Amino acid sequence: MVTYETQVERWGVAEFTCHGPADGNPFTEQYIRGIFSCGKETVETDGFYDGDGVYIVRFMPSFEGTYTFTLTGSFFEEEKGTFLVRPATGCNHGPVHVAGTYHFAYADGTPYYSVGTTCYVWELQSDERIAQTLESLTKARFNKIRFCIFPKHYDYNLGEPRSYPFEGTPMDSRVLTRENFSQYTGKKEGNDWDFTRFHPEHFRHIERCILELQRRGIEADLIVMHPYDRWGFSDMTAEEDDRYWRYVLARFAAYRNVWWSLANEYDLMTNKTIADWERYASIICEKDPYHHLRSIHNCHPFYDYSRPWVTHCSIQRQEPYLSAENVTKWRQIYKKPVVLDEICYEGNIQFGWGNISGKELVRRFWEAACRGGYAGHGETILNPENVLWWSHGGVLRGESHKRFGFLYDIMCGTPGLGLAPYDLKWDCVCAVPEQEWMRPVKSYYLIYFGFTCPSFKEYHFDDETEFEVEVIDTWNMTIEPRGRVKGAFRVELPGREYMAVRLRAV
Amino acid sequence: MVTYETQVERWGVAEFTCHGPADGNPFTEQYIRGIFSCGKETVETDGFYDGDGVYIVRFMPSFEGTYTFTLTGSFFEEEKGTFLVRPATGCNHGPVHVAGTYHFAYADGTPYYSVGTTCYVWELQSDERIAQTLESLTKARFNKIRFCIFPKHYDYNLGEPRSYPFEGTPMDSRVLTRENFSQYTGKKEGNDWDFTRFHPEHFRHIERCILELQRRGIEADLIVMHPYDRWGFSDMTAEEDDRYWRYVLARFAAYRNVWWSLANEYDLMTNKTIADWERYASIICEKDPYHHLRSIHNCHPFYDYSRPWVTHCSIQRQEPYLSAENVTKWRQIYKKPVVLDEICYEGNIQFGWGNISGKELVRRFWEAACRGGYAGHGETILNPENVLWWSHGGVLRGESHKRFGFLYDIMCGTPGLGLAPYDLKWDCVCAVPEQEWMRPVKSYYLIYFGFTCPSFKEYHFDDETEFEVEVIDTWNMTIEPRGRVKGAFRVELPGREYMAVRLRAV
Repeated sequence: MVTYETQVERWGVAEFTCHGPADGNPFTEQYIRGIFSCGKETVETDGFYDGDGVYIVRFMPSFEGTYTFTLTGSFFEEEKGTFLVRPATGCNHGPVHVAGTYHFAYADGTPYYSVGTTCYVWELQSDERIAQTLESLTKARFNKIRFCIFPKHYDYNLGEPRSYPFEGTPMDSRVLTRENFSQYTGKKEGNDWDFTRFHPEHFRHIERCILELQRRGIEADLIVMHPYDRWGFSDMTAEEDDRYWRYVLARFAAYRNVWWSLANEYDLMTNKTIADWERYASIICEKDPYHHLRSIHNCHPFYDYSRPWVTHCSIQRQEPYLSAENVTKWRQIYKKPVVLDEICYEGNIQFGWGNISGKELVRRFWEAACRGGYAGHGETILNPENVLWWSHGGVLRGESHKRFGFLYDIMCGTPGLGLAPYDLKWDCVCAVPEQEWMRPVKSYYLIYFGFTCPSFKEYHFDDETEFEVEVIDTWNMTIEPRGRVKGAFRVELPGREYMAVRLRAV
Repeated sequence: MVTYETQVERWGVAEFTCHGPADGNPFTEQYIRGIFSCGKETVETDGFYDGDGVYIVRFMPSFEGTYTFTLTGSFFEEEKGTFLVRPATGCNHGPVHVAGTYHFAYADGTPYYSVGTTCYVWELQSDERIAQTLESLTKARFNKIRFCIFPKHYDYNLGEPRSYPFEGTPMDSRVLTRENFSQYTGKKEGNDWDFTRFHPEHFRHIERCILELQRRGIEADLIVMHPYDRWGFSDMTAEEDDRYWRYVLARFAAYRNVWWSLANEYDLMTNKTIADWERYASIICEKDPYHHLRSIHNCHPFYDYSRPWVTHCSIQRQEPYLSAENVTKWRQIYKKPVVLDEICYEGNIQFGWGNISGKELVRRFWEAACRGGYAGHGETILNPENVLWWSHGGVLRGESHKRFGFLYDIMCGTPGLGLAPYDLKWDCVCAVPEQEWMRPVKSYYLIYFGFTCPSFKEYHFDDETEFEVEVIDTWNMTIEPRGRVKGAFRVELPGREYMAVRLRAV
């Protein structure tokens, strides 16, 4: 009865499909689950109903070799079998996990330097726009994207999504205008959903998008809940929420590039309590056997990132002036990776969270990087089509996205898993390899001058270490070799903004 | 025996000169003082020895009409007489005092909006450079300059001053290089001064400079002590310090445009204690009958600006990112005018206190202004002659100084004595007239967007007030009228940095 592939790649998806009852409400009345085992792990996972009498169990094997599986369910006798897990190929390095306290690495040990962006509902747009977005992501070399499972109702994004997560019909949205949209936020009235019946195609489509991202080496930072809603999805009961969470976990957890973002701006979902968030978190911890990365994103107050289930900070800056500058402090407080998912987007809209220049956003990326954190991008540039990257994806119109690949390459050239801030002088930001920051002399210094415009800088680390000096123009993306130095030395600089000096011990 | 002018302008200097003993040490062995009286005030002031047997008493009359004077001294019988005080003329508005808690006004009530700069020892340069500096100050429309009475020993400024404040000879400065200069800081050895004998020409020259500033409507923010010293002037005994303070007060207090800055970077003068600073302050309070403005400037920790003798904050920002942004906070803490005398200079030197762009400095000026404070300028732009404005004066080479006159004119167009920050929205800085900030609707709003780049902004204050809307480009110095609005309205903006909106109730 069960169909499945007999060979699967390590960290790929082993999928087990079988047919069962389509009558009644299979979402609530039936279940299916699997136990997967090899010499090194035994994993139990929930399956899910995919509509039309189809039931699926997914599993992500973490090891190579022969696995056995045992499927059980409410509508069939136990089924057993084996399958073979082959080595990972291509850009498959496994899921990303926390490594070295403040950083990330893929399961195979490859460092992961997050360069993320936000397109809240890119995947709920037309096929054409989705293709455009994927192309833009690849070209800009982003390796993480934040997006929502639920559709989004917010200024510049008042249209209907391509599909809904539940069976039923939405309110009539023809009444919506930019002026009145806020009065429909969180509204249940006019919507007619059956929250006990998921709409599988909505999820299948998102899975295809997750796989498209995976193919491109891009992590899918899934925002499972959010407040920008006119359909009532932000206002379900605890039971409905929990069923939704379990369905999401059963469907998406086996994709290696998934991260869990419990919410965008959790604090704006005023009908949810901290107890609710903690309950959702415990469902993830129970139902995600792969321990994908978990965080939750704020509007105003941070969630308590020191909670044990939180793997990393997913920060929206809290005030208009400082963002990346606080990475040092936040690392000290939380002792976890600091990801700055919102530090103001490049753009020109009326809102102060979406109208800084490309130069300023790139500066914040470098500032974050040299403090041992990871900044995130977004674009809110007005255009005649009203298609804004931050919400819809599409094409990138700004200047910042062209510069992240350059920074990423610099990051890839650092020793170890990531950088740590080092208090070299008060008037620069200096990064050293995380594992070296307590050593008297480091093998690597990345010194960033941000908005200051020095014409030269003088250094004297010690009399023995020979350094290779390079001057980096972070905006124009040039690296100028300046030869080798020892003892006291001086580095000539162009006296303009956004310069850095890289010193590497020979 | 006494010579003096029988007529003097209100807030001008009435000067009484007489001859006396030149033998012994007149600075310590003789004294002269005057009592000046009209119907409205009676003032007692110390005179001073000006060398070559000449003794002088100076007095600044605060009222018009007939004054009587009585001079007494150690070497002559009492002398009495009268003189007439005529009305002030030209740009003479009297001394500047604190007005409206957070602001300044001249004695005649004219608001004073401080637009200051720093040229630490401009007056100790050649006549030619001094003339150049005065011309530059006028052209840039600065109305305050901070400078030192003592010469300055610091990087880029290792030469000898045109004169010294005491009789004697300095150490041989031929040994100085950029590399070793710091080891001579505060050094007494090699210098041979008689701290009991002032060098009157040093002070006479500074008086001429103060008068040149006065003629141009520029306040002289006199830095009486400072740590950047190789001559030992920063390391005198308490007795020597106090004698110096009394001499400075006797000579300079009668000039209406004098402000007292007890020190530049008081906290770097590690051989002075808070008790010392408080003693100097009490000497000023005792010996300056005109109550000129008094403050003291920090390097790291602020002096306690809440001390009663401190009339206003004279701040050096304490960290590399925030400066003008803190004006709101500092106003709340100190309840005094906030003058930001150092918030990083426009320039390209190696030090982080002197290498921001002109754009960033102008942004800080506007940020400070719209928060009800007053920023200060300085320039540290490298040039082949090594003549840096911040130290020597000379010509201005930057971009920021061209934009302060524009801001000043905007300030002059505000109702009342100055602006107060108003919490309109989190993503802009909004200034309203100080006297109106508690009113529900204001007659004037100056809204500044700084580094954000909105393409439009929407407002709705109330349904009644009609406003005249203007869009201000603070960098390109244009003011674009946008007609009159009422109720809810939208202002189109160019989507670039450094824009402001001015709303004036019709």
